[in-house]
Amino acid sequence: MRETLAEWRPAIDEAIADLVPREIDADYLASFFGDPTYEYDPDAIQRALSTPLWDLLDRGGKRWRAVLFLVFVEGFGEDPAAYVDYACIPEILHNGTIIVDDVEDEATIRRGERALHRVYGRDIALNVGNAMYFLPLKILTENPADLPAERRLAAYEMLVAELNRTHLGQGMDIRWHNEDDVRVTTDEYLEMCACKTGCLARIVARLAAIITDQPDDVEAAVARYAELTAVAFQIGDDILDVEHSLGRAGDFGKAFGNDIREGKQTLLVIHAIQESDPERARRLQKLLAAESNTDAEIAEALAIIEDAGSLEYARERALELAARARVEVDRLEFDAETTQKLHAFTEFVIEREE
Amino acid sequence: MRETLAEWRPAIDEAIADLVPREIDADYLASFFGDPTYEYDPDAIQRALSTPLWDLLDRGGKRWRAVLFLVFVEGFGEDPAAYVDYACIPEILHNGTIIVDDVEDEATIRRGERALHRVYGRDIALNVGNAMYFLPLKILTENPADLPAERRLAAYEMLVAELNRTHLGQGMDIRWHNEDDVRVTTDEYLEMCACKTGCLARIVARLAAIITDQPDDVEAAVARYAELTAVAFQIGDDILDVEHSLGRAGDFGKAFGNDIREGKQTLLVIHAIQESDPERARRLQKLLAAESNTDAEIAEALAIIEDAGSLEYARERALELAARARVEVDRLEFDAETTQKLHAFTEFVIEREE
Repeated sequence: MRETLAEWRPAIDEAIADLVPREIDADYLASFFGDPTYEYDPDAIQRALSTPLWDLLDRGGKRWRAVLFLVFVEGFGEDPAAYVDYACIPEILHNGTIIVDDVEDEATIRRGERALHRVYGRDIALNVGNAMYFLPLKILTENPADLPAERRLAAYEMLVAELNRTHLGQGMDIRWHNEDDVRVTTDEYLEMCACKTGCLARIVARLAAIITDQPDDVEAAVARYAELTAVAFQIGDDILDVEHSLGRAGDFGKAFGNDIREGKQTLLVIHAIQESDPERARRLQKLLAAESNTDAEIAEALAIIEDAGSLEYARERALELAARARVEVDRLEFDAETTQKLHAFTEFVIEREE
Repeated sequence: MRETLAEWRPAIDEAIADLVPREIDADYLASFFGDPTYEYDPDAIQRALSTPLWDLLDRGGKRWRAVLFLVFVEGFGEDPAAYVDYACIPEILHNGTIIVDDVEDEATIRRGERALHRVYGRDIALNVGNAMYFLPLKILTENPADLPAERRLAAYEMLVAELNRTHLGQGMDIRWHNEDDVRVTTDEYLEMCACKTGCLARIVARLAAIITDQPDDVEAAVARYAELTAVAFQIGDDILDVEHSLGRAGDFGKAFGNDIREGKQTLLVIHAIQESDPERARRLQKLLAAESNTDAEIAEALAIIEDAGSLEYARERALELAARARVEVDRLEFDAETTQKLHAFTEFVIEREE
């Protein structure tokens, strides 16, 4: 899978640079946004839009949403090279949500450097993050692959539906952070992941299906595959946060016990509270609800989670979801290579180490 | 015009409540967002979405974007009552931008109460503001007026184009706040207004034209009317900030010299710098660039603006734009009542006192 990711990356970044060039000038602005009524200020737009967007993209990111889209397109029998522009849609949307999430969570670090709002100011960061919700949607209007009107409409309707659910998931998640009690059920937690992380993955799969004109049941099946994989990915994230923190219990840095400090209600926390004896469960609740935690308190919370067997439980759930995702793929009539690549994605999301 | 605004308000608020009910339950969530894969948490969504949204709407706002849309629909010969759901699109988009702008500007007060991010936290406020960019777009998919596919596609394409330009305008504006020198030209300032404020007004006009199937030249003419009116409105806003501050020069409250404190590059400021003698122009630049200003410094900046005749200049420009907006309307073949209402809007935006 590493090869597939590396192979496509230059073409994807080139397509993103067609959408938002590294150097902004008046000609680009007129061609993409329409003629100005008076006069654009390309220099301001360079600094407000292009520079922060490329700063984030150049820090890394595997572009796996774009690549997964191209794997689907190829699996559906079309030439992926003809659809690279469309691959930017989920990729830019995703990077936009990252910028906005970092403002919402008051994150300090993103991809090893200062979060965008700490480099450019909160106003610029938010505006570029929000612009990235609409810039890629214009690709459907530009229509580089000459799609018929009904497919463009179907794509817009799908995007609007999924982006609405994304905000529903994010709403549940941040609302829970602000609550003192962990009262969330496992099903509510999984729904939050299905909305928040799952919908962007569903966009990847459904966009590929709509653009290549697949029947509804195929679109639904790849959407389920993408959602299951994304939920497994999210659980993998929560596991990594605890594992990394346990691994460096002596090295009390910034990344130590992040999720606990934020009061995040993860699958591990929900399980640990259900499975621990009442006194330890109450203690974990209290540590999560606290305004701040000492490093010793973080270590204590981590120990409660570890002792409850929550890491093993979460890992099993993630593996189960990934297995169900593979079943969805196996039911479809993809060629062996596509099936293998789609299987590899479900493994990657769980076995990654960062 | 007051009567038109008052007449429609209950129907508009009812349509908004169909989209986002005041009380969220699982049935609404399943019908609007689709069946959950696992289980929604209606209580969290109540607190993350519905409560803050209705808090803002219940504080007031004239719903003039929704009403202007209905005036156009009636002028185009259709029954406005059949299109009230669509009238919510620009109204909710506008209120969403207000929430996000207040976070970007670190505003403290909105409609006489604490800004939403100060009541609910920045994370909840941002998420509800962003959700309001996508919730209303779903109305086109729900399709209450049974529009044919090509009109729905045209509406989506128009919305995406205009929302992209909105973020371009906002990007220019906030970037200029962060600059020390006022180097903006009058045309760049007017473009920023045309993008930032104008595009939401253009959505009002173009949506009415698209939905009622008007020819392209009619859509373009009402869009120009809306943009001209919106730019006049924005200049009116800048004038009011200076007038209010001059009027209460003794009453050094929060609202005194807001725009100057923010370092906003308004039409008045651009004019004052051009027209004042070099020493006073430099002094105004310096006061705008300062991290903070004493009340005496604000009074000094206001005096430079007043002495340069910038209030009269800005008022003339706004009146000129409003007159051009009326010419656009007069060229179209609206009935006398619609023409009168559209004229009244161009007067309202300049003559209002708050």
